[in-house]
Amino acid sequence: MKKSSISNNVIRRLPRYLRKLDDLAYHGIDRISSGELGKQMGLTPSQIRQDFSCFGEFGQQGYGYNVEGLRYEISNILGMKNGYSIIMVGVGNLGHALLENFGFEKYGFQILAAFDVRAELIGTTIADIPIYDGAIQADFIRENDVDIAVLAVPKRMAKEVAQNLVDGGIKAIWNFTNIELEIKDPDVIVEDIHFSDSLLVLSYYLSELTNKETAEDD
Amino acid sequence: MKKSSISNNVIRRLPRYLRKLDDLAYHGIDRISSGELGKQMGLTPSQIRQDFSCFGEFGQQGYGYNVEGLRYEISNILGMKNGYSIIMVGVGNLGHALLENFGFEKYGFQILAAFDVRAELIGTTIADIPIYDGAIQADFIRENDVDIAVLAVPKRMAKEVAQNLVDGGIKAIWNFTNIELEIKDPDVIVEDIHFSDSLLVLSYYLSELTNKETAEDD
Repeated sequence: MKKSSISNNVIRRLPRYLRKLDDLAYHGIDRISSGELGKQMGLTPSQIRQDFSCFGEFGQQGYGYNVEGLRYEISNILGMKNGYSIIMVGVGNLGHALLENFGFEKYGFQILAAFDVRAELIGTTIADIPIYDGAIQADFIRENDVDIAVLAVPKRMAKEVAQNLVDGGIKAIWNFTNIELEIKDPDVIVEDIHFSDSLLVLSYYLSELTNKETAEDD
Repeated sequence: MKKSSISNNVIRRLPRYLRKLDDLAYHGIDRISSGELGKQMGLTPSQIRQDFSCFGEFGQQGYGYNVEGLRYEISNILGMKNGYSIIMVGVGNLGHALLENFGFEKYGFQILAAFDVRAELIGTTIADIPIYDGAIQADFIRENDVDIAVLAVPKRMAKEVAQNLVDGGIKAIWNFTNIELEIKDPDVIVEDIHFSDSLLVLSYYLSELTNKETAEDD
């Protein structure tokens, strides 16, 4: 594997490929050319071949890609076969929504428990996931060798709770707080999810459309 | 403006630049070179210059970029000065979380109302936003010339509600349902937000880290 030299842009395209392949499989398509795949995803065939060449040879010249095979390879590259364990930290509206609707298992993750500091939540369950006292989360991480914490606490608590997760030995934090966590340990992976990035892209295209219509009216 | 030829990849980097510039301004930095900006963002200086050259000339040779000036230009390009109006469609846990925490106004959007079909919610407010009966949302869009709908309804209702929004004349849908909406009208902009893309990138890096550690142990 020549993984470590692979650019972040290539990595970020992998989940998109996976979604497209799921969609193709769902529609009963079992083979696709790089040309057709590119057309459907807004990428050039050469970009697709280049992306996949980072990980080995997936296609067969002239035959295109086997949809199931490629799906299997990409899901492996993304670590979906590793069965990473997850805890949810913070069960406000967002944490609640993620527990009920996200479907962690679908991507190969195991969700073990959720944590909150509010007494009325502790001891209850959401979507069969037990909610424990946030005070014991670091111990829980240590005892269960938890891989990933989903951070969905209020902004004002974000840094303190993140440090507590790191102290417990968490390996990765999926950060929904929109706060820069500033984790000192370089071996802890932090992936921030920024809703605003997506809304601003929408706003750009809306603005472009409006400009076009105005130009046509002139 | 040569907007329409600009690649989606460049557009998707603009909100990231904006976040970085906000961060720089917050830390009192008023000027930055493309080299330093690139270093902080994991991009090459030439990629940064190329990205910005799509929109005109923002920097001055040898002086770098003015942080406030560049922030202003990018926020304009992203349509943040247009004051787009927004409605929230679906006030479950996710819609509730977005209304309370997202801060649409911070990005220049005006959030007008929310809609749900559950009788116990209709007539109440969340974060001062009134919740109306979903049955009247198409009329509301027409009467108020609403630009953007945030779609946060359960999956099973996603397509039907989306069609109702389009019938009302919505211009853009920010789609949180993880369902492919299949809108026929090419002038309606749909931006899907896929939480899983972000978690799978985290999973990739975690997997890479584990492989590295295993290799070192051998």
